[in-house]
Amino acid sequence: MRDETTCPFCDLVAGRTPASVLFADQIALAVMDISPLNLGHVLVIPKHHAPQLSDLDEPTAARLFAIALRAQSALRRSGLRCDAVNLFLADGEAAGQEVPHVHMHVLPRYEGDGFRVVFERSAQPPRADLEADAERIRRVWD
Amino acid sequence: MRDETTCPFCDLVAGRTPASVLFADQIALAVMDISPLNLGHVLVIPKHHAPQLSDLDEPTAARLFAIALRAQSALRRSGLRCDAVNLFLADGEAAGQEVPHVHMHVLPRYEGDGFRVVFERSAQPPRADLEADAERIRRVWD
Repeated sequence: MRDETTCPFCDLVAGRTPASVLFADQIALAVMDISPLNLGHVLVIPKHHAPQLSDLDEPTAARLFAIALRAQSALRRSGLRCDAVNLFLADGEAAGQEVPHVHMHVLPRYEGDGFRVVFERSAQPPRADLEADAERIRRVWD
Repeated sequence: MRDETTCPFCDLVAGRTPASVLFADQIALAVMDISPLNLGHVLVIPKHHAPQLSDLDEPTAARLFAIALRAQSALRRSGLRCDAVNLFLADGEAAGQEVPHVHMHVLPRYEGDGFRVVFERSAQPPRADLEADAERIRRVWD
């Protein structure tokens, strides 16, 4: 398990590796992804080493999302190709998280850009099944 | 263009269509997706008809994200299969937005669940190119 001393995003926050920084404050920063899926691909990263969403406090989380929204707004006005935007966050390996330091992707999109989401959608469940699942989630909601 | 009178998510907020609601406050609600990609797929939706991210004010955006984080936390403790989580939001048709009312997907994930992201990654650009793109975005950042 990586920690602050071996985390590539902590290196980036600390200035130990080069980064093209778009915005930084006390809590978080927005940088260009070095392996962009499309040109203009931005990452928003908390400064504190938080491996997972459960490690974020609510003000930090709110700040990350606010910065992601500003990033998408700027991208749309930047002149880079950006007809639409995906926000994407992977929390955990089975979701595709590769660096164990929370990061939100802000991805410029356009028709034919080669990015797509593939899935086998389950059959549309009956309401009773949805309600049963909902009840399991509501029971532990806090 | 849909508006409040023909928007399926406004219908849901107003109680005109059935929904399995997990949580609701003045600003937003979390409901079960009726066409889940995996069981436990949750949508977080502002109550006000906001077609795009640019139509959200910052407190509403922060609230949506806070609710999404609570949803993922509850999902992980619900007993539904959930080893990891993706947060996903499509803003604009070219990003895959189908309903023109902002909604964040909270998607439970596990190995072999049939969900994947496919892309043709651009070659890793030289730092000078990243910096040039960064400068175009920084110029319009606000």
